[in-house]
Formats: sequence, structure tokens, C-alpha cells
Amino acid sequence: MAENDKTTIVLFSGELDKAIAAFIIANGAAAYDHEVTIFFTFWGLNTLRKDQLIAVKKGILEKMFGKMMPRGADKLGLSKMNFGGIGPQMIKHVMKKHNVLSLPQLIELAQEQGVKLVACTMTMDLLGLQKEELIDGIDYAGVAAYLGDAADAKVNLFI
Amino acid sequence: MAENDKTTIVLFSGELDKAIAAFIIANGAAAYDHEVTIFFTFWGLNTLRKDQLIAVKKGILEKMFGKMMPRGADKLGLSKMNFGGIGPQMIKHVMKKHNVLSLPQLIELAQEQGVKLVACTMTMDLLGLQKEELIDGIDYAGVAAYLGDAADAKVNLFI
Amino acid sequence: MAENDKTTIVLFSGELDKAIAAFIIANGAAAYDHEVTIFFTFWGLNTLRKDQLIAVKKGILEKMFGKMMPRGADKLGLSKMNFGGIGPQMIKHVMKKHNVLSLPQLIELAQEQGVKLVACTMTMDLLGLQKEELIDGIDYAGVAAYLGDAADAKVNLFI
Repeated sequence: MAENDKTTIVLFSGELDKAIAAFIIANGAAAYDHEVTIFFTFWGLNTLRKDQLIAVKKGILEKMFGKMMPRGADKLGLSKMNFGGIGPQMIKHVMKKHNVLSLPQLIELAQEQGVKLVACTMTMDLLGLQKEELIDGIDYAGVAAYLGDAADAKVNLFI
Repeated sequence: MAENDKTTIVLFSGELDKAIAAFIIANGAAAYDHEVTIFFTFWGLNTLRKDQLIAVKKGILEKMFGKMMPRGADKLGLSKMNFGGIGPQMIKHVMKKHNVLSLPQLIELAQEQGVKLVACTMTMDLLGLQKEELIDGIDYAGVAAYLGDAADAKVNLFI
Repeated sequence: MAENDKTTIVLFSGELDKAIAAFIIANGAAAYDHEVTIFFTFWGLNTLRKDQLIAVKKGILEKMFGKMMPRGADKLGLSKMNFGGIGPQMIKHVMKKHNVLSLPQLIELAQEQGVKLVACTMTMDLLGLQKEELIDGIDYAGVAAYLGDAADAKVNLFI
């Protein structure tokens, strides 16, 4: 049997619109039997945060980063026309109207389809994010693991 | 005869500088006989809007999106140093001075060279953009068609 | 002996966080014996500027661009949470604390590992940047050279 095609996405950006694009491409590729990996780095990691506040011990800078960054997929802003949070509400409204899955649903679907969600451990250290603060069922790895996947993949995107 | 190489670009961003980069890469690849597809999604769709106001029936949210987003390649702002529209004028001035094609000319050249310009139908629905509002000679498709092209392509970029 | 894998990155963005991501991926790929090219275009070119002011003859617009854009890797801002330059200081602080190389060190390492750093000559013309203003040991080329590398590469990213 032929080996499956592979697709990798680096999700660097922490905006709702870019995260939606990443997960729509990832879910589409998974539906075509691609092995798909999304590697979450820098602001992209915020997509994976749990929405409740998790009590973990942190330094001052890490606490500040934790407070200033959005807590989870439902809190992300838009890269354009954010208007202090009205833009994301508008987008969520039209997505629902057109029966497009919301970002939290797209993430759930990705996990059901076996899309590998990988949190970049180096950025977690930098931003002071700990495993307890991120959603369950994800992997943890560094840039070497990403490059191993990407070198075998047909489609590699940086978003 | 060997099959042609393929190049695909997802143009997600709606800024002049990023659209110029996308079309310079696309036209360069087409000049080397690559089959090139640009898939326009989210704010990238604004690149394809006609510059005149087209009367179509829309809901309130769709009307608001339509008004707030730039109408066509000539109205896009810069991702940096936009300065309320002075930045784009400066860039257009230096492009002309150095005989670089303008964005509308780059789009025309791409169409002449057979670059396939594809508007993402799902985003058109979300943003309430209708076919009449987009330039002529483009294709309409969803993420599945993009993935079909990308899986065969040597160069795949997300801009 | 098998030919080495190739990786190319277009660095379009001129922000510290994106430049760090680009160089960490590039250095990782080089450590795995990939031939790596970073093609610096538009705002990404600022990463390659020397930090001292270099006296070169320029027109008025080119002088303005030169003044408004950050002079070198150590002056770049963040794409998020820049806070007038406090954000970059915070990131630099946590990078040092976690023994992550700084951007200037990442650039040096890339040059030591043979990563090819290529300045886009067309954008240099547009922004009025001259060779004397950019760091030593880099190459100069246009989009055709980039496409030649990318068509042979396994991993191609646009950052």
C-alpha cells in the first residue's frame, strides 16, 4: 500500500482568522488521508490554551505574558478589522450562519481525524506556558521534530 | 514530454506589499513554465474586487464587510508604514520609478501568462462577496481544489 | 552520495519574532545537512542592515524609507505586544534566561553553518537600500534565483 501524503503547518500567528485558515486546510488534508501535523509556535500556542485560568507557579515576566495573551481558541482576535473584539463576533456570527464550524469545533474535528497537534517546547519555555495550561491530547516537541515531518511532506505552510 | 512543475500560493493577506510579493513570485514561476495557482482566501479576496461599486443584494453584516474592506488591488494598504495611505503612494511611486509593474499590471500579466486565480468560495460566503464584485476571468473553488493542486506542486506558499 | 535536501525561506516580514522563527528553522535544517537559503525581501531586508549609519547617496524617498525602517536585527519590533519596544526587551530577556541565541547570534550561526543569505535586489532598489548598508557575507539575487532554489527544495516557507 502506498504511504500516505503528508502535510505540515507551522502556526506562528495567534489570530482567529489565521487559525481558522490553518485548521480548515489541516482538516481538508486529513479528509484526503494526508498525515497532518500542525506545529504551534510563538503566538500560535495561544490557540491551544485552556480557557480557564490554571494555577501554576511562574516568574513575573511569565505571569505578564500569560495575562496579556489570549486564553484559548475562543478568545483570539482578528488580524484585520478586530475593532476591539467586535470583528471576531461578526466573523463568528457569519460562520455560524453559513454552517462553518467554529474554531473550537475545528480543533476537535482535527483531533478526531488524527491531525497531530504539536506545541513547540522552546516557545513554551520563552512565554512561560506549562503543559497544564494547554488542551489535552497534544504532543510536545522542538524544531527538529517539525523538520523531520516537513522534509517528508508534500505541502508545508507557515501561517 | 515532462510534466510542468507546479507552484501554488494561498494569498490570505489583503495588503499591497504581500499581494505584490505573491504576484511577483507567481509571474516569475509562470515565466519558468510552472503551472501556477493563486488561491485567494479571507482578506486576500479584496485583491480581486472590482474598483467600482457593484449593486448586489446583501444582508447588513455583508454590507458592512463590503464597505470596510478595500475595493480592489489599487486600494490596498501596506502591512507596515501605511501612514493612512501615504505609505502605499510612496511604494507605488518608487515602483514606477524603478519600472516595476504595478499590482493591477502584475495581475493582468498573471492572467496573460495563464496563472490560475481562484477565489475561495467559502470565504466569499462569509464576507458576503459575490461573483459580480470580483474581476473577470477567475475561477471559483474550495479548499479541496487547492489541496489537490498543492499535493502535486513543488513550491507551496502561504502569504 | 545522495544529494542534500534543500530548504528555502522567504523572509518578507521585518519583525523580531518572525525573524527568530525563520533563523531557528534555518539553523535546524542546516544542522540536519539541508542546503538552506533565506531570501530576504521587503521588510525582511531590515534584518540584514548594519546597525551603524552608513553614508550613501540617496534620493529623498529612499532617505525617508531608510530613516523609518529599523536598522538591523537588534532594532526589530514584535508583530504582537510590541508596546513601543518593551515587548522586544522582554523577549530578549527570556531568550537569554533560557539560553536561546539572540537574533544577531542566530544570524552568525547561520553564516557559520553555510546558510545562504540572499538579499532581494529588486526590493533593495525600491527601498533604496545599498550593499554598503547590509552585513557582509551575503548574496544578492532576484526572484528567478529564489525560484530555482525553491523548485529543488523539500521545504519552502514564506514568513
